[in-house]
Amino acid sequence: MLSGPRYFEDWTVGEVLSFGRYQVTTAEIKEFAEEFDPQPFHLDEAAAAESLFGGLIASGWHSAGILMRMVTDHGAFVGANIASPGFDDLAWPIPVRPGDVLSARCEVAAVRRSKSKPDRGTVTFDLCLVNQAGETAMSLSSLVLYRCREAAPVEAGLVEVEGGE
Amino acid sequence: MLSGPRYFEDWTVGEVLSFGRYQVTTAEIKEFAEEFDPQPFHLDEAAAAESLFGGLIASGWHSAGILMRMVTDHGAFVGANIASPGFDDLAWPIPVRPGDVLSARCEVAAVRRSKSKPDRGTVTFDLCLVNQAGETAMSLSSLVLYRCREAAPVEAGLVEVEGGE
Repeated sequence: MLSGPRYFEDWTVGEVLSFGRYQVTTAEIKEFAEEFDPQPFHLDEAAAAESLFGGLIASGWHSAGILMRMVTDHGAFVGANIASPGFDDLAWPIPVRPGDVLSARCEVAAVRRSKSKPDRGTVTFDLCLVNQAGETAMSLSSLVLYRCREAAPVEAGLVEVEGGE
Repeated sequence: MLSGPRYFEDWTVGEVLSFGRYQVTTAEIKEFAEEFDPQPFHLDEAAAAESLFGGLIASGWHSAGILMRMVTDHGAFVGANIASPGFDDLAWPIPVRPGDVLSARCEVAAVRRSKSKPDRGTVTFDLCLVNQAGETAMSLSSLVLYRCREAAPVEAGLVEVEGGE
């Protein structure tokens, strides 16, 4: 496994990275929900017990934040990425509950170098947030734009390298 | 427009709801990013000025939280909804910047009553976060599970109503 920030060329389809460890507390579940997602099953134990979930659960957007923090803390993702144009297939197969210990699992699903801008390319990641029982609590597909370590070679005039960086 | 919480039967394809008004501050952009998305262009004005974005921008997950809060504050969505099984097509076409005034736009894209559990159905919403210039800063498709106001009638034994509620 490479250490430090990666460029577009450093990602290989099929590679799996597992990282992060975070224990979720009741207090932070309620704090996040009060600000961004004030539904009873995120805020109140008694109301949550009577809901479909049978107890307090984290907002799905809170889980997304926890996963994003693991991704940004992991050295491989930061540095040479330019932006995240979008995400897809968000799902929360099982709830995140107080006390859960979460980690991240990331598989490289696709790599695609830009034809119009050969100094960059997109990497598609299948990202999961996994709990202490190995169950997937959240999954999504993420498309990230990366800088290339080196500009693409000019081949028979097919691509034009603008600046060389 | 109906007031109060809605049930499955109260949603009609093509209906558009516009609601919410929220002005984003520099302080909260940094505060969210420190906890969930500590990338330079969310945390530091100087680093952000040199990034692709040309200035400080909110984390996409912060924008998602702001949109979710508008949705939960709007009376039509709470009460009879059971869960959000998933989201799709997340995109951030333009950044959210300090001072932006955001609102929500929601179009009902599809309604589908459950065949196996006729006391509930799913509603597909096309959700957008719109800024003061009318530009879409975030868009996603959301599938929400709602209770039915009334149980489906039993027709020729095709469906079985379990409890009647």
